[in-house]
Amino acid sequence: MSTVDKAKVRKLLDAVKAEGRTSLTAPEGKQVCDAYGIAVPQEGLAGSAAEAARLAGGMGFPVVMKIVSPDILHKTEAGGVIVGVGNADEAAKAYDTIIKNAKAYKADAKVVGVQVQQMLKGGQEVIVGAVTDGSFGKLVAFGLGGVLVEVLKDITFRLAPATQADALSMLDGIQAAEMLKGVRGGEPVNREALARLIVGVSQLVSDFPEIAEMDLNPVFATKSSAIAADVRIVVDFAPKTPRYRPPEAEVVVSMKRIMQPKAVAVIGASDETGKIGNSVMKNLINGGYKGQIIPIHPKSAEIMGYRAYKSVKDVPGEIDAAVFAIPAKLVAGALTECGEKKIAGAVLIPSGFAETGNMEGQQELIAIGRKYNIRLMGPNIYGFYYTPANLCATFCTAYDVKGSTALSSQSGGIGMAIIGFSRSAKMGVSAIVGLGNKSDIDEDDLLLYFEQDDNTKVIAQHCEDLKDGRAFAEVAARVSKKKPVIMLKAGRTSAGAAAASSHTGALAGNDKIYDDVLRQSGVIRAKSLRDLLDFARGVPILPTPKGENVVIITGAGGSGVLLSDACVDNGLKLLKPMPADLDAAFRKFIPPFGAAGNPVDITGGEPPITYMNTVRLGLEDERIHALILGYWHTIVTPPMVFARNMVQVVDEMKAKGIVKPVVASLAGDVEVEEAAQYLYEHGIPAYAYSTEIPVAVLAAKYQWARAAGLL
Amino acid sequence: MSTVDKAKVRKLLDAVKAEGRTSLTAPEGKQVCDAYGIAVPQEGLAGSAAEAARLAGGMGFPVVMKIVSPDILHKTEAGGVIVGVGNADEAAKAYDTIIKNAKAYKADAKVVGVQVQQMLKGGQEVIVGAVTDGSFGKLVAFGLGGVLVEVLKDITFRLAPATQADALSMLDGIQAAEMLKGVRGGEPVNREALARLIVGVSQLVSDFPEIAEMDLNPVFATKSSAIAADVRIVVDFAPKTPRYRPPEAEVVVSMKRIMQPKAVAVIGASDETGKIGNSVMKNLINGGYKGQIIPIHPKSAEIMGYRAYKSVKDVPGEIDAAVFAIPAKLVAGALTECGEKKIAGAVLIPSGFAETGNMEGQQELIAIGRKYNIRLMGPNIYGFYYTPANLCATFCTAYDVKGSTALSSQSGGIGMAIIGFSRSAKMGVSAIVGLGNKSDIDEDDLLLYFEQDDNTKVIAQHCEDLKDGRAFAEVAARVSKKKPVIMLKAGRTSAGAAAASSHTGALAGNDKIYDDVLRQSGVIRAKSLRDLLDFARGVPILPTPKGENVVIITGAGGSGVLLSDACVDNGLKLLKPMPADLDAAFRKFIPPFGAAGNPVDITGGEPPITYMNTVRLGLEDERIHALILGYWHTIVTPPMVFARNMVQVVDEMKAKGIVKPVVASLAGDVEVEEAAQYLYEHGIPAYAYSTEIPVAVLAAKYQWARAAGLL
Repeated sequence: MSTVDKAKVRKLLDAVKAEGRTSLTAPEGKQVCDAYGIAVPQEGLAGSAAEAARLAGGMGFPVVMKIVSPDILHKTEAGGVIVGVGNADEAAKAYDTIIKNAKAYKADAKVVGVQVQQMLKGGQEVIVGAVTDGSFGKLVAFGLGGVLVEVLKDITFRLAPATQADALSMLDGIQAAEMLKGVRGGEPVNREALARLIVGVSQLVSDFPEIAEMDLNPVFATKSSAIAADVRIVVDFAPKTPRYRPPEAEVVVSMKRIMQPKAVAVIGASDETGKIGNSVMKNLINGGYKGQIIPIHPKSAEIMGYRAYKSVKDVPGEIDAAVFAIPAKLVAGALTECGEKKIAGAVLIPSGFAETGNMEGQQELIAIGRKYNIRLMGPNIYGFYYTPANLCATFCTAYDVKGSTALSSQSGGIGMAIIGFSRSAKMGVSAIVGLGNKSDIDEDDLLLYFEQDDNTKVIAQHCEDLKDGRAFAEVAARVSKKKPVIMLKAGRTSAGAAAASSHTGALAGNDKIYDDVLRQSGVIRAKSLRDLLDFARGVPILPTPKGENVVIITGAGGSGVLLSDACVDNGLKLLKPMPADLDAAFRKFIPPFGAAGNPVDITGGEPPITYMNTVRLGLEDERIHALILGYWHTIVTPPMVFARNMVQVVDEMKAKGIVKPVVASLAGDVEVEEAAQYLYEHGIPAYAYSTEIPVAVLAAKYQWARAAGLL
Repeated sequence: MSTVDKAKVRKLLDAVKAEGRTSLTAPEGKQVCDAYGIAVPQEGLAGSAAEAARLAGGMGFPVVMKIVSPDILHKTEAGGVIVGVGNADEAAKAYDTIIKNAKAYKADAKVVGVQVQQMLKGGQEVIVGAVTDGSFGKLVAFGLGGVLVEVLKDITFRLAPATQADALSMLDGIQAAEMLKGVRGGEPVNREALARLIVGVSQLVSDFPEIAEMDLNPVFATKSSAIAADVRIVVDFAPKTPRYRPPEAEVVVSMKRIMQPKAVAVIGASDETGKIGNSVMKNLINGGYKGQIIPIHPKSAEIMGYRAYKSVKDVPGEIDAAVFAIPAKLVAGALTECGEKKIAGAVLIPSGFAETGNMEGQQELIAIGRKYNIRLMGPNIYGFYYTPANLCATFCTAYDVKGSTALSSQSGGIGMAIIGFSRSAKMGVSAIVGLGNKSDIDEDDLLLYFEQDDNTKVIAQHCEDLKDGRAFAEVAARVSKKKPVIMLKAGRTSAGAAAASSHTGALAGNDKIYDDVLRQSGVIRAKSLRDLLDFARGVPILPTPKGENVVIITGAGGSGVLLSDACVDNGLKLLKPMPADLDAAFRKFIPPFGAAGNPVDITGGEPPITYMNTVRLGLEDERIHALILGYWHTIVTPPMVFARNMVQVVDEMKAKGIVKPVVASLAGDVEVEEAAQYLYEHGIPAYAYSTEIPVAVLAAKYQWARAAGLL
C-alpha cells in the first residue's frame, strides 16, 4: 500500500480527544482517509468562477458545488448547492449563481468560497468498514451496498491489518461475489483498487486502536477505481486491558511440565471410593503413569500405597503439576503453596467459581497464578489426559486408545462425549483436555503445546467463546500450516450483534465473525459435535492429497449419486470429464453396462477383483489425487473381503511410494460395521450407512491442505 | 380470483397455433393477462389532444405516449415517443408534438392515433413466471427483480394451479422476503394483490397446457397494486404423453394383493445355494411367511420341500404375486403367463433392462403389464419386505424387527444400507421396498398403499427422480396430512436447469423445484442418508406435539448451548422468556448456581431426582409442548439410572394422560450407548455423542405436524 501519514492522523485524533468528542466530522474523516491513501472524492475550494471551472476540469465532470460559509448552515435552503455540473462553462455559471443566492439568502454572510467536489456515480456501490470485537479486536468488513444486502446480511470480515490477499479473498467471500465481476453486461470492478482500499482501512484501525468503528458507505467501485463517497469514524479513547499472555516460549516450557510431568501432586487425594481425589489417584495409577505420584492430604501419611504429605511444600523434590480435588474455598490457599513450591501448573477440577457467579474467587486464583507464574487449567474441569505419558489426570475413567488427535473442550459434558465417542469408535487420542472457565490456560496455549508435540498430528477443539480470539487466530494461523486445527464453536446462534453505532457494526453478527476469522486462520470449522468427532478421528489417518482431482469408484450406482451430491456440498472437485484414455482403462475392468465417467460405476454384482482393479488404477494414475469408494454388500463380495482387499491394494501401492487419501461408504447389512472399523484401523476412514460422512472427512482434509498452502 | 375469459385465450392461442408461432406478441400477452385478471399497465388510443389528456387523467400520471402507425417502425427515431408525461396539459401538448413529428418524419404515414400508457415506477420490482417441468408439469415461480437476485438465484416455485395461500407462502419463501415488508422506511407491498397475480398466472398455465413458459418481468409491486410491466409467453402445442396411472382404488387393490399375498410364486426357485431363486425361497420360508409358497421351475417337481410347477398357469389356485429370479431374457415370457394367470403383481428382481440400456426389453414388460393389468415392481431390484405378513420377498437376508416405518429406495445399494441400519439400530420396520427402474410401481403407488395400511405410521423414501412428480405431489399432499412422509432426493446437485427460453426457466434449478414442491406437499426432506434413517427411526415413536414451545433440560451446560444452536438451525422455537412462575418452579429443584431460563441447566453433579423433578415439571406444565434432554454421565447419575428414571417419569405422566415428545442427547462414556437404545425402545429417541440428531428428529416431527395443520 501507499505510504501513510501517521503523524497527521495522530494530531487530528488528539484534537478530537481533547474536545471530548466520540466521532469525527466529515472533513476530518476525509483527512484521515487521505493520510492512509483511502480514495475519497476529489475536492477543492474555488474563490472565483474561473477557479471553479479549472478545479472541476481537473477532477473530471460531473461535479457538485456547495457554498462554504460559517454563516450558512442550511446550504440547500440557501440555494447554495448545485449538483450534476457537467462542464467548465456550467461550473463558472454555477459559481456565480451560488454566490448570488448566498448573498440573497443572507446579505452579511461571510463567504469563504465554493467547494467543488467530484460527483461519484456508476459502478457497484459497496460498503467497507471496521469494527472492534471484544475477542478478536480490530476487524475490517466488506459487503455490497444497498437495502437488499442489508436484508441478506451478506457481509464478510477479516482480522485487521489485512493483507492484499486477505482483502481480495473478501471480494470472493460474499454470497453476491458475482456482482463484482460484471453481470448482465456490467463492467467488473477494479479488484486491486478495491482491495487496496480495504487494506488501507484495516491498516488505519490497527495503527490507531482508538478508532472503534469506521464506515465507508457507499464506496463506488468501478473498473478504474474505488472511492469512498461517505466516511464515518467513531472513536473510543478508553484504554482496554488486554488478557494476560506469557511469551510463547514460556508457555511451551510450562505446558510441557504440565502435560509431561515428572511428578504430579494430587491435592485432596483420598482413599475413599466416590471421592474425586480418589478417582484421580486411581486414574493416575491405573492409567500407567510412570512419574512420581504425590498425594497431598491434611492427615494421612499414606494414600493408596503412596507416601502422602500435608502440603506440597513438604515434598522434597520438584513437582511439575498439581491436580486439585478439594472444595472451592480451600483452593486459593493450596494454590499459593503450589506457587511457593514453583509448580508449573495447577489442574483446577473444583467448581464453584465464575460459573456459579463467584467472580471474586476466580480473580483471586488468577492473581495468585500471575504472582507465582503458575499456569491454571480450569477451574471447573474434568482434568486432562495425555496418553503418550499414560497420564490420566482426571476423575473420569482412564483412557487407553493412543493416537495422534489432541482434543479439548470448554464444557465438561462435551468432554465426556469426546471420551465416550473416542473409546467407542477406537479413535486414537494423544490428549483430551478440559478448559472449563479458562481463567488462564486456553485454546491458544494448547495450540502452542501441540504445535511442537510430535505425538499430536491433529488438534480438535470445542469452545463456546475465545477469551482472546486475536491471540488464538494469530497462533492458529501458524499452527494450522503444520497440523490441521478443527474447531466446534458452540453458541453460534445465541449472541446477536452487539449494540453498535455504525452501520458495519450493526451488520456484524458474532457468528459470522468467528466463521470468517477461523477460515482466515486456516481452522476447519465443524458444524456439529459429530462432525468435530468424525473429523478428529478421520483426518489424521488420511494422507495429504497432492491435487484436487477426486474420483468416486462405486459398486452401488445409488451411492455414487449421493456421494456426488456430497462432493458438491463439501466443495470437492470431481475429475470431470474423465480423460478418454483413463475412461477406457476403467471400462476394461467393468461390465459393459457399467458406467465409467465419474463416478466409476462398477455395478453391484462384481467380484472382489473388479474393486481391486479399479482402485489400483485409481491409485496408480497420476491425474487422480483422491478416491471415494462406494461399497455394496453382496454375496459375491462380502464386507470383510472387500475391506481386506482394499487394504491390500492400498498397501501394495504404498510399497511403490504411491500414497493417496481413500475414504469409503459402506452400504450393506450389519457386517459392514466390522468392515468399516477394519478399514479405519488400516488407514481408510470408512462409514456404514452413510454417504455424507466419508466425503465430509475427506473434504476437511482438503480444506486444511488448501489453507496450509499444500495444494 | 376474478372470473376469467377462457374463450378469449382459447381463440387467441388457436390463432397463434394456426400461424405456427411459438411465442405471443406483446399485445397478445396483454390480452391473455386481461382475460385472467392479471394486472397490466392501463392504456388507450387517443385520436385527439383532448382525448389524450382525458385518457391519461383516467389512468393516473405519469404516462408514456407513443405514435401508432403501421408506416412508422422506429417510433423513437421518428420522435414518436414521449415518456414521463406528468399532467393533462402536458398530455395534450405531447399529442400534438408526436403527430407533428410523425408527419415531419414521414409525410404520408397513415397515423392511427397516439397510444397513452400508464407508466409504472416505484415499489418493488419482482418477477412472476411459469415453467413446464418434465416431472412436475406446470409450476409458477416468484422472485425479486434485479441483477443481484439473479446472482443469488433467489426464486421459489409452487405447483400450478396455486391457491392464494400457496402464493402468499411464496412471498415468504425467498431469502430476501423482508424486502417485501418495506425496509429502510420503504412501504410494504400489497401482499394480497401480488398473490392474486401469482394465482392468476398459475391458473392460466393450468387451463392452457400449451403455455410452456411465461415471464412477467418486471412486475411493479406497490402498496396498492401489482402490475406486470412486461409479458412474455412461450407456447408449445406438441402434446405430451402422460405416464400411465391406474385409478387410486385399483392401485390399492393390487398393492394389497402384492404386499399381503395369500400365495406367492417364485419364478426361478432353486435348491442351489448362491442362486437368487434359492435365497428368495429361504427368505420366504425363514421369514415366517404363512401364505402359500409356490416354486416355479422348468424341471423340478419339488423345491425345498414345496411342490413345484413348470408354469404359474399349472398352479390350481389363485396367485397374488410372483417374484422373478430368472435371467432378463426369460422375463417377458414368464410375465405373460403371470398375466394370463391374473396375478396382481410381478416383483422383477432381474437386472438387464433400462439400467443397462435395454430400453426395448423394459418397454416390452410395461406393455405386457398394461395388457394384463399386472403391476410391475422393478425391474432391477432387491425385492421387498412387508413385516406384518412376515414376508421377505427378496434375495437379501431376512428382516425381523417389526415396527411402523415403511421404507423404500430407488437404488439397491441404498436399500442394503437401509436394511443394515435398521437391523443395527433396531428400527421397527413395516416394509422395505426396492423400486429400481420404476417401470411401473413408483413412490406414489407405495404412498397409496401405506396410506391405508394400519401397520405403517411413517413413510420414508429414497429416490433419484420422480417419474411423475405431479402425481406424487398430489398423493403426498393428502397422505402427509395423515402420516409423515420423509424423502431423501438424491442427485440434488447433478442436474442443472434445463435449457430454457424464458428468464424464469433459466433460473429454475431442478433441485429448487423439488425442494419447494416437496414442502408444498407436506413432505419432510432429509438432507442426507443418515437423516433419512434417523428420521425414519425416530419420528414414528414421537407423539405429536400440541404446540411450539420447546424446553431444554440439561445436566451439561455445554450440551445446552449446542442443543440451543441446533434448535435455531432446525427451526424449533424455544419457550423464551420462561414465564416467571415456571422459572421459579424449576429453580426450586436445581442448585442456586444452576441456570433456569431455557435451557434449564440443572448442573452436572445432580442426583437422578433432579432430572426427574425437572422433567416431571416440564411434562406437567401446559405451556411446555416438547422436551429436549441433555444428559451428562456422572457417578451420581449413571446412564442406565438416568434412562430408567426418564422412562418412569414419562410413563407416569402418560398414565395421567400427559403425552409430549421427548428426545435426549447423551454425553458420556460408552455406557450411554446402552442407555440411548433403552430410551429409544421406550419411546424417547436418544443419541450418544450428538446434540444435533435428537433436535433434528424432533424438528422433523414438528415440520410434519405444522404441514399437516396440527399446530
